[in-house]
Amino acid sequence: MSTSQDDVAFRSRRWVRPEDLNAHGTLFGGSLLRWIDEEAAIYAIIQLGNPRAVTKYMSEIDFASTAAQGDLVEIGIRATSFGTTSLTMRAEVRNMITRARILTIEKIVFVSVDSEGNPLPHGYRDITYDRDRLPEGKQTT
Amino acid sequence: MSTSQDDVAFRSRRWVRPEDLNAHGTLFGGSLLRWIDEEAAIYAIIQLGNPRAVTKYMSEIDFASTAAQGDLVEIGIRATSFGTTSLTMRAEVRNMITRARILTIEKIVFVSVDSEGNPLPHGYRDITYDRDRLPEGKQTT
Amino acid sequence: MSTSQDDVAFRSRRWVRPEDLNAHGTLFGGSLLRWIDEEAAIYAIIQLGNPRAVTKYMSEIDFASTAAQGDLVEIGIRATSFGTTSLTMRAEVRNMITRARILTIEKIVFVSVDSEGNPLPHGYRDITYDRDRLPEGKQTT
Amino acid sequence: MSTSQDDVAFRSRRWVRPEDLNAHGTLFGGSLLRWIDEEAAIYAIIQLGNPRAVTKYMSEIDFASTAAQGDLVEIGIRATSFGTTSLTMRAEVRNMITRARILTIEKIVFVSVDSEGNPLPHGYRDITYDRDRLPEGKQTT
Amino acid sequence: MSTSQDDVAFRSRRWVRPEDLNAHGTLFGGSLLRWIDEEAAIYAIIQLGNPRAVTKYMSEIDFASTAAQGDLVEIGIRATSFGTTSLTMRAEVRNMITRARILTIEKIVFVSVDSEGNPLPHGYRDITYDRDRLPEGKQTT
Amino acid sequence: MSTSQDDVAFRSRRWVRPEDLNAHGTLFGGSLLRWIDEEAAIYAIIQLGNPRAVTKYMSEIDFASTAAQGDLVEIGIRATSFGTTSLTMRAEVRNMITRARILTIEKIVFVSVDSEGNPLPHGYRDITYDRDRLPEGKQTT
Repeated sequence: MSTSQDDVAFRSRRWVRPEDLNAHGTLFGGSLLRWIDEEAAIYAIIQLGNPRAVTKYMSEIDFASTAAQGDLVEIGIRATSFGTTSLTMRAEVRNMITRARILTIEKIVFVSVDSEGNPLPHGYRDITYDRDRLPEGKQTT
Repeated sequence: MSTSQDDVAFRSRRWVRPEDLNAHGTLFGGSLLRWIDEEAAIYAIIQLGNPRAVTKYMSEIDFASTAAQGDLVEIGIRATSFGTTSLTMRAEVRNMITRARILTIEKIVFVSVDSEGNPLPHGYRDITYDRDRLPEGKQTT
Repeated sequence: MSTSQDDVAFRSRRWVRPEDLNAHGTLFGGSLLRWIDEEAAIYAIIQLGNPRAVTKYMSEIDFASTAAQGDLVEIGIRATSFGTTSLTMRAEVRNMITRARILTIEKIVFVSVDSEGNPLPHGYRDITYDRDRLPEGKQTT
Repeated sequence: MSTSQDDVAFRSRRWVRPEDLNAHGTLFGGSLLRWIDEEAAIYAIIQLGNPRAVTKYMSEIDFASTAAQGDLVEIGIRATSFGTTSLTMRAEVRNMITRARILTIEKIVFVSVDSEGNPLPHGYRDITYDRDRLPEGKQTT
Repeated sequence: MSTSQDDVAFRSRRWVRPEDLNAHGTLFGGSLLRWIDEEAAIYAIIQLGNPRAVTKYMSEIDFASTAAQGDLVEIGIRATSFGTTSLTMRAEVRNMITRARILTIEKIVFVSVDSEGNPLPHGYRDITYDRDRLPEGKQTT
Repeated sequence: MSTSQDDVAFRSRRWVRPEDLNAHGTLFGGSLLRWIDEEAAIYAIIQLGNPRAVTKYMSEIDFASTAAQGDLVEIGIRATSFGTTSLTMRAEVRNMITRARILTIEKIVFVSVDSEGNPLPHGYRDITYDRDRLPEGKQTT
């Protein structure tokens, strides 16, 4: 109840290496979007207890700043609401070196699907804190 | 003058190979976003006559369908308006095999920047049809 | 009927990023060959109406010029003849920034194969213009 | 003072996708080693306040179990001691789906170096908890 | 009988390209570990006559020197002993340009496994010199 | 003097992993061409004593057979003649599992260039056997 939002945030960091640069030497937007989608997928899989979670929606993205080679980028993701078959998250990305915010995505929606790709109710309403939902979900299968 | 919008569309195709799949065998959203950002960058560079064009904004993205291994995905990009330092584009992605629309992004904005990363007026108002704006821009440098 | 060959050409562009460079900072030949093979495969799949199209032959390749980081490379592919199970194409690659031709491959042959990898007659004699051959081919399967 | 070691652990997760598999469909050891080295580098950069931190030593590695496509792998890294120019860490990797430990590396040593690659004293003795050492270090440069 | 161990060594070379660099421009440790694991896997597959050979153990690794963009790195691998289900190898990596040794791994153990991942006796005691063990192994399957 | 040509051949092996497959599960031609170009570059750098060696020409390529996931592919390269600024090589690729030849490229020409990309006489007429030409070349610079 008194758990702060920071406690449930899911953070990962990426190191900007030459393969992530665009042709003029700053972080390639496509690399960053790929990292965010991967982290959101991992977080959704844990929260939904289902490895088949697919990207359904992303709200608008405003690129406020960028990063250079060697910078560290931190991606923070937090669940904001659960639907019957979906999970809505918020992502915030910042440059750990310059301390500048790079971008925020207010809503990223993933949907839990069955093996045919149809939406599958997940039955959860709350964020899991111990990151053990997935193994339990698997045991019941 | 009577050139239809279709004539100015910029189309590219990608072939969904194993490295582009997510863990349950459909096109990984992050790969697709990376492809779109790369194609938008190329189109912006040609239209702005400046190789230093960076992603500034993307409007919301609704993933309507997906693609499987071996499918062909077509990315179509079209300029919709020019600002002083920016170019606004619209992207539409479809699965060439199933004929289904995968997603549409109404607005992708790129900004022309100088070597320090500051916005640089580009001086263009119209779409280029012969894809030769870039070399001319270079000659004046 | 009076459609010029240019209309049927299939063009794609690649942006030379750090991951495509060789150790002395120009476009790595291996990256370029990989791009060409991928574009030829996509074009062959569309023309042959069969996702199982494999590279069978490439004629000699003379590397006339190269590209630097940030350059745009345009790959143009055109069908030149249809065999019973094969499609022959011609590829031309140019640097959009320097306007220099990078290379030309007079003949790239792809063969349509069945699920065992054996040549499969494709039944086509003409280039498709509407890029819808593939979906139709799929419907009959 | 009463902060448990778990609080300072640095955790990241990776999602096993097709590109990370070896030829018989389990997690490729080389991909895993690459992920661990990247996470250790990021952690060392933050703790040493220097983006030029290089891998110097890894103790023996026993691969206790593996992971399959779609599994989530969690990499936990913790600082164990500071030397004049070095940082020693301990890494533990587990499969979040099967709950099995994949491997443990008792000692990973990174060294802070200057722009010529020579060891550079870092002046730190304690773990940083707020992940802000790096920006401060940069301000003093 | 008088064949020196050098004759049986398995050597491969890698060319350090931009995608293999860390954020400060020297060979990324994770790329090197990935290359070594791949070469050890190939050598193990040939010696064990089984494509399902998995990394089981690596002894400590001391990074003595590094490599720069454009350098050539040589990886030498040699079998040192055969167990019932395992093969032990020794790896030495040197920089062909500076002639400096980069690292040595005294023991890399791979295990031959069956399709379920269980250890599988391989029945070999000697190094194969003609690199034809694998095809023969396949014929008996 | 009586050294057979086989002794001077330069062999490397690649392991076909999921990321090297085309969309129908056999070795992607583009991946193979990339591997060959990389191995030829390494061999040319050693023989020409110059890290700036670029691909100039490849003779026709006939894809005789392919490889499946898990197969080992062996690439053999041999110098066939030296020009004033060039080196001509022959490449042969075979599948180590099926023993089938995959392809042969009769002529691959690399040219030694200076830092501006202009052809640079290399002064060699003979194949080097000790792979130490490169470090010596570097010492004289």
